[in-house]
Amino acid sequence: MGIILIGERINGSFKDVGKAILEKDKTVIHDRVAKQVAGGADYLDVNMGAASRSPDDFAWLVEVVAKATSLPLSIDCNRLDMFRTGLKAYRDTVGDRPVIINSTTAEDGKLIPLLEMCSEYKAGIIGVVMDERGSPQDVDRRLELGGKIFAAALEAGLATDQIFLDPIVMPVKFMQDQAKNLLNAIQQMTMLSDPPPHISIGLSNISSKSEERKLINRTFMVMAMAMGLDAAILDVCDEDLRNAVATAELLLGQEIYSDAYLKAYRQRGAASSAAQV
Amino acid sequence: MGIILIGERINGSFKDVGKAILEKDKTVIHDRVAKQVAGGADYLDVNMGAASRSPDDFAWLVEVVAKATSLPLSIDCNRLDMFRTGLKAYRDTVGDRPVIINSTTAEDGKLIPLLEMCSEYKAGIIGVVMDERGSPQDVDRRLELGGKIFAAALEAGLATDQIFLDPIVMPVKFMQDQAKNLLNAIQQMTMLSDPPPHISIGLSNISSKSEERKLINRTFMVMAMAMGLDAAILDVCDEDLRNAVATAELLLGQEIYSDAYLKAYRQRGAASSAAQV
Repeated sequence: MGIILIGERINGSFKDVGKAILEKDKTVIHDRVAKQVAGGADYLDVNMGAASRSPDDFAWLVEVVAKATSLPLSIDCNRLDMFRTGLKAYRDTVGDRPVIINSTTAEDGKLIPLLEMCSEYKAGIIGVVMDERGSPQDVDRRLELGGKIFAAALEAGLATDQIFLDPIVMPVKFMQDQAKNLLNAIQQMTMLSDPPPHISIGLSNISSKSEERKLINRTFMVMAMAMGLDAAILDVCDEDLRNAVATAELLLGQEIYSDAYLKAYRQRGAASSAAQV
Repeated sequence: MGIILIGERINGSFKDVGKAILEKDKTVIHDRVAKQVAGGADYLDVNMGAASRSPDDFAWLVEVVAKATSLPLSIDCNRLDMFRTGLKAYRDTVGDRPVIINSTTAEDGKLIPLLEMCSEYKAGIIGVVMDERGSPQDVDRRLELGGKIFAAALEAGLATDQIFLDPIVMPVKFMQDQAKNLLNAIQQMTMLSDPPPHISIGLSNISSKSEERKLINRTFMVMAMAMGLDAAILDVCDEDLRNAVATAELLLGQEIYSDAYLKAYRQRGAASSAAQV
């Protein structure tokens, strides 16, 4: 099993996407869908960012993306009513295609209602290991909160394969010592159960405000994969990153070796593009 | 503590170097020394390859390299008499500068005499985890042989810091499943003692006969560093590889973050070039 790549580019924080949401202009959205599908995305994240606070706008965005691809989506916001509107629009549009809720924290007031909603709509979830006390600084606290989310999600009826734990990436520029803690946490999370839940990160945050963003992103990604990371939200249109991921999959035995493995990897994306329309 | 980079480019198997050894032409050798020093090497490996079987030629090569740099050398051959000639030339040329013997296996007939020689000349050693039964295919056997070499080296009077264990890199093209075993073995070797011996690999072998050599090299290097690798024989003149290593050091907290960390890393090499002459 290779890594699950969740494309991060449909986000209202990008100026053109934000404008497209407000103007109900599908062209920009379709273009971003097509590029990420061609880039080999396994899921597409759908996030309104600060572009709008209207659940109807969110439902529109989810529907436009869902209709433009056969990939499953990651529904990304931070309000229960918005999640529910987005999920409902998704189910009305595509039936029982898989979907992930991105994301919950470990706070009971947020975790429990979101898990109930996931159970109702047969959705998976990304659980970020923070709670009312904030983001953890050490490995043990990350594991403790990860374990709490994992247990609650199983209790709510989700399958292990629907549960993604996010150990929280912090910018190396501002919290340099957290990168190593994070790598250790990833490895230990893979031992929570057998099979373990998915371990997922929001990759780009590692290089926030750094100058060498892409180099830092792909280097950290490969290190995290060595530790057992098996999912990430990232820029699937970054070709050097994709090549690094493909090479890491090769070295971890997740893809069979061929001299043309990079080409094979690119064709995976191209094939699913062609399969759609 | 950052990683120890051992420059692989002084090797008689390169045609120009082989010719230079036979013709006693220092120009080619000096050029390779200078480039690897500028590339940030911490040690320079000195290997005659198949260019000559004469211990005198080896002594000449060691002396030329040792005089051209203030870096310590890694004396690289596979015959006891040659090692001894090379080491003696080194000690006569540079006094008590550090040096590593590259390499022994775990076979008693080779291990014990080489360790006695290391003890006599105050040299460190690289111990490759293979023996008369060949190269191990699994993690446990790698650890067993690594433990044997480590214990024998301590017994011979070497300091932990002088002992480098090499878990043996095999080409991903021909033995794909070994890459993951190797990563696991690296991590477990770091737990042999506290502080542990150095863990070192001959990096380039991972991409032997592959088409994407440099990409595979730097991806595996970064993954191995995440697992605890702290030394490698590699091409320090490969700039993308150096940048990947510098970024991995940053993410592991082995170098302090600055936006210009790549520049700082390059200047490390430039500074030691300037310090020589």
